[in-house]
Amino acid sequence: MPHHRYRPAHARVALPLTDRTWPSRTLDRAPLWVPVDLRDGNQALAEPMDTERKRRFFDLLVAVGYKEIEVGYPSASQTDFDFVRHLARSGEVPDDVTVSVFTPARHDLIDRTIASIEGLPRAVVHLYTATAPVWRDVVLGRSRTEVHALISDAATHLLRRAEERPRADTRFEFSPEVFNLTEPDFVLEVCNGLTELWDASPDRPVIHNLPATVEIASPNVYADQVEYTHRHLGRRGSVILSVHPHNDRGTGVACAELAVLAGAQRVEGCLFGNGERTGNVDLVTLALNLYAQGVNPMVDFSDLDAVREVVEHCNRLPVHQRHPYAGSLVHTAFSGTHQDAIAKGMAHHAERAAALGVDPGEAPWAVPYLPIDPADIGRTYEEVIRINSQSGKGGIAHLLLTHHGLDLPHALRPDFSRAVQRVTDTTGRELSDKELWELFRTTYIAPAQDGPTTLESWSTTETAPGEHRFTGTLHTGEQRLSCGGMGSSPLSALTDALGAAGIEVDVLGCTEHSTGGDAVAYAECRVGGVARWGAGRDTSVLTASVNAVLAAVNRAAS
Amino acid sequence: MPHHRYRPAHARVALPLTDRTWPSRTLDRAPLWVPVDLRDGNQALAEPMDTERKRRFFDLLVAVGYKEIEVGYPSASQTDFDFVRHLARSGEVPDDVTVSVFTPARHDLIDRTIASIEGLPRAVVHLYTATAPVWRDVVLGRSRTEVHALISDAATHLLRRAEERPRADTRFEFSPEVFNLTEPDFVLEVCNGLTELWDASPDRPVIHNLPATVEIASPNVYADQVEYTHRHLGRRGSVILSVHPHNDRGTGVACAELAVLAGAQRVEGCLFGNGERTGNVDLVTLALNLYAQGVNPMVDFSDLDAVREVVEHCNRLPVHQRHPYAGSLVHTAFSGTHQDAIAKGMAHHAERAAALGVDPGEAPWAVPYLPIDPADIGRTYEEVIRINSQSGKGGIAHLLLTHHGLDLPHALRPDFSRAVQRVTDTTGRELSDKELWELFRTTYIAPAQDGPTTLESWSTTETAPGEHRFTGTLHTGEQRLSCGGMGSSPLSALTDALGAAGIEVDVLGCTEHSTGGDAVAYAECRVGGVARWGAGRDTSVLTASVNAVLAAVNRAAS
Repeated sequence: MPHHRYRPAHARVALPLTDRTWPSRTLDRAPLWVPVDLRDGNQALAEPMDTERKRRFFDLLVAVGYKEIEVGYPSASQTDFDFVRHLARSGEVPDDVTVSVFTPARHDLIDRTIASIEGLPRAVVHLYTATAPVWRDVVLGRSRTEVHALISDAATHLLRRAEERPRADTRFEFSPEVFNLTEPDFVLEVCNGLTELWDASPDRPVIHNLPATVEIASPNVYADQVEYTHRHLGRRGSVILSVHPHNDRGTGVACAELAVLAGAQRVEGCLFGNGERTGNVDLVTLALNLYAQGVNPMVDFSDLDAVREVVEHCNRLPVHQRHPYAGSLVHTAFSGTHQDAIAKGMAHHAERAAALGVDPGEAPWAVPYLPIDPADIGRTYEEVIRINSQSGKGGIAHLLLTHHGLDLPHALRPDFSRAVQRVTDTTGRELSDKELWELFRTTYIAPAQDGPTTLESWSTTETAPGEHRFTGTLHTGEQRLSCGGMGSSPLSALTDALGAAGIEVDVLGCTEHSTGGDAVAYAECRVGGVARWGAGRDTSVLTASVNAVLAAVNRAAS
Repeated sequence: MPHHRYRPAHARVALPLTDRTWPSRTLDRAPLWVPVDLRDGNQALAEPMDTERKRRFFDLLVAVGYKEIEVGYPSASQTDFDFVRHLARSGEVPDDVTVSVFTPARHDLIDRTIASIEGLPRAVVHLYTATAPVWRDVVLGRSRTEVHALISDAATHLLRRAEERPRADTRFEFSPEVFNLTEPDFVLEVCNGLTELWDASPDRPVIHNLPATVEIASPNVYADQVEYTHRHLGRRGSVILSVHPHNDRGTGVACAELAVLAGAQRVEGCLFGNGERTGNVDLVTLALNLYAQGVNPMVDFSDLDAVREVVEHCNRLPVHQRHPYAGSLVHTAFSGTHQDAIAKGMAHHAERAAALGVDPGEAPWAVPYLPIDPADIGRTYEEVIRINSQSGKGGIAHLLLTHHGLDLPHALRPDFSRAVQRVTDTTGRELSDKELWELFRTTYIAPAQDGPTTLESWSTTETAPGEHRFTGTLHTGEQRLSCGGMGSSPLSALTDALGAAGIEVDVLGCTEHSTGGDAVAYAECRVGGVARWGAGRDTSVLTASVNAVLAAVNRAAS
C-alpha cells in the first residue's frame, strides 16, 4: 500500500502548544450537550428522516434531557425547512429547550434560515464556513483575506436579520470548518473578529465551535489544538467553546473527552454516533463514560433500550452488537473466567449491599468485567452470562441458580461443566438457560426413572429414635423383588435395602435445598468402585434424596 | 440515574506520573501487531469458531502479514486444543510466523497448554493472572503476596516444561489482569520478578502485556500508566512492552495509540474490534490510522472488503455501516456541501497527478472529507457520492459525469438540482445514478419528442459561407406545416424557421460535447419571456442541438 501518499498531522498543521495542561486535568462535570442528529446525522442517511421521524427523534431528545438541539439545515432542503416550521408553529418546544439551525455564510441562505425560525422565541443560528487551506484553495478558490471578508459580511447580514426579530432571543454560533486542518492563527483571527462583531458579553455569549469534520491525528493533537484556541480566545468569558468531533480514526469519543479537559465547554454529537461517513461523536457513550466516573451526565439513559429503539427506527440504521453500553452483546460473558468472576462479584455485591443496609441498586458498584451495573441502564443481570464451549463452571452454576433455583454443590460443578462442554464442543452452539436446565435434568435427574433399576411403592418409617426402616419394590430389567433395610437415616436404610438386593452403594454426600415449592437433592455415590452424581427434585425432600441416590446408581450402571 | 455509585478513575488508581513525555511524541512507525481473534475474539462469540473457520481466519491473518498470532486457549475447550494440534500437525505455519497460546497460572492447565504445542518449532506461551484488587479480593480470595507466589510458582513450572522442549523455541508472555486497575508498584513487582525468573535477555526478550481488560478512564490515564511502567521496568532492553486495550468506553483505539506514544512496542487486538463485550481494540483501524499519517503499517489492507468478508463469515457478526475505513457508508457523501467539495477535490487531484506526471493512485492525496483515497483499500470513487434530499448540484453533476458521461454546463446545474430535490423531498428516498439519469432524460431530453411541437424530416444546408438554411415539417397539436428559415448558423436558421411559424425563440446559449459515440447538447432558450433549458443526445451533434432547442421550446410551453 502506497503510504508515501500521506503526510503526518504534525507536517500538516503547526502545533504551537508545548506547555499543555490538559493531561493533568480530570473530568469532573458534564459539558453542555448538543445533539445534531436532526441535521448532521440526518444529512448522512440514505433515507433522510421525514417530519414524523424527525418529530419522534426531537421528542426523544427532549425526554432524555437535552436543552439545546440542532434541528435542521433549513436552506438545504424543503423537508428540513418544513420541520423547523412545524416546530415553530406547534408551539411545543419546551421553555427550557433552545433549537439551533445550520446555515452557510450566504445572504440568501441566511434569509431562508431566518424565515424558518419565524415565531420561535429562542434560537441559535449556526453559521459555518470552510476555513482550512485545502477547502479555501480547491473548493472556494479564495485567499485567507477573502474568506475572512466573506465570513464578516455574512455575520453582519445575520446580525441585521436577527435584529429584525426584536421579541425573539437569537444567539450565534460559528464553525470554522475543518478546524483541525486550519492554521491556528487564522481560527483565532476569524473567531475573535466575530466575537467583536456580534458584541458578545457574558450574558449573551457567542458559541465558537471547533469541528474535527474529518479526524486527522491522534486525539492528543486535537486536545492541543483546542487548548491553544481556549487560551488565546478574546473576551473568553463571553465565549462558549464548543467541539464537534467526527470519528474517521475511531477516536471521536477520546477527542471529545480530551477536548473537554483542554477547555471545551460544549460538545456536539449524535446518539450512538450517527453522522457523515464514520459518524459524529457518540453522545450516549460520552454521557455514560462520565456516569461511570461518578459524574452526573445531566441526561437520562436509565432505559437505554427504549432510546435505542427510537433511534434505530428514525435513522434506519442498527446499533452494533458491540456498541459501548447499548450493544446487545455488551453485558454478556461467554468465557468461563469472566463468568466465574462476575458470578462471584455479584454475590459479593449483594452481600455488601445487605451489610450496608441499602438496596443493591444503590450500593457502590465494583463487579469484575462490568464497568457499570446493567440495571442502571435498564438491562437485567440474566443477560450477562451465556453458555457455550468457552464457558466455565462458575457461569453455568450462576445461570442454573438465577433461572432455575438450583444451587449446585461446588463438588458437582466441574462434573456438570464437562457435560456442558461435551455438548457445546460438539454442536459449536450456544446453550440457552432452558437447554442448560434440560441437560442437567437428563444427565442427573432422569436416570432415577430411566433405569435399569427403579423403585416402586416404597416407604420409610422411623421405628425408634435414630432407627429407620426402608421397604419397597425394586425393578431391575425383567426382575421384580421386594426389598427392605435398616439404618440410622432413611438414606442409609435405603442403601442397606439396595445392598440386600445385590447393589452395593456408598453415599459419599448428599445436599438438599428448597426452591420454589420443591426440594432438590444432590447425591454423590460410589457404586461398584465408580463415583457418580445423581439429583432429584420433588415436593418431598425425602423423595428427592431417594431419587438422587437411585439416579447415581443408574448412572454408574450405564 | 444513581451516579454516586461510581468512583472516578483517579480515586481508584494512584497515578504517580506527572512529568509525562508521551503528549509530545508522534507516531512514526508501526508497533508489533498481534491479532487475538482466535482466542479473545473467539471466546466472546455466541457461536465460537470451529476448526474450519479458525483455519480460514488464521490463513487470512497470515496473508495480511501478521507475524505473531494468538491461536487459542487450549486448556479451556477441546475445540481450541484441537485447533492448535491441527496447526502443529499440518506443518503449515509459515517460518516467519509465531503462534501464541493462552493459559491461566495453574500446573495442570499449563501442562495441557504445552501438550497442545507439541511439534511446533516456535511458540509464545501467554500466562495470565488476575492482579487487580477487586479480582484478588472477590475472585481469588488471596493477598498480594499470595498472588505473587502463585504467579512465580506457575512461571517456574512453565519454564521447566518449556525446557523439556529443547528443539523448540518457546517464549513467554505475561499479562497482569486488569492492568489498569492494579497498583502500579504491584505490576512492576510481578513483571520485574518474571523478567528475572525467566532470565530475559535482549535476544530472548519476555513480553509483558498490559491489558486494559475493562476500560475505566479516559485514554490519557492509560497512557500515563503505560509510560510509568515503561520507565520503571527492569532489564528494559530485554522486555517487549505490549498493550491489550478493550473498548468499554469507546476509546480502545485512542488508548492503543497513546500507549504506543508512551512506550508500548506491541499491540494485541482483533480485526474490526471483535472481543468480549464491546470488543478488543480494532487492529484494522490502528493500521490504517498509521497509513493515513504516511507510516507503513506493515500489514496489507489493499482489499479491505475481502478481509471483511472472511471476518464476518468466521465471527458471524457484521461490521457496522459506519465502522472506520471498512463500513459500507464510510466512503459515501449524501450532503450537497460534501459532494461539491469532493467532486472539486477529485478533479483537482487528477490535474495535480497529471502535472506531476504520475498515476493518480500514486500522487499525494488531499481531497476534502476523504482521509484516504478509497482506491487504496479497494473501494471505488463511484461509491463516494450518493443522491438524496440533502444532496447538492456538485454531487449530482459528478454522478452524471462519472456514470453517464454528461458534463453539465455550470448554469444548468442549479436548475437540475431543484428538479432532483423536488423528487427526493417528495419520496424521502435516495436516487440511484440510473434514476438520476432517467430524471435528467425525462426532464430535458424527452420533451423534444413529447411535444406539443415536434419536427419531422428536417435538414440544413450551408447555402454560402456563413449562410445556413433550415427546412422541415412542424407538427403542433393537430397542425402540420412546412417551415423554413435562414441564419448565420444551423441553429439560427432553425429559430428563424420557428419564428416564421409563430414560435419566438431566443437561444441564450448552447454547449455540446461528445461522450461515448454520442454528442450531447445543452441549450438555454428564452421562449415567450421564459428561460428554459433543453438537452439532446444523438450520434450527430447537429441533431442533438436541434433537439435541445426543441426540448426547451416544449418545456416553456408546458
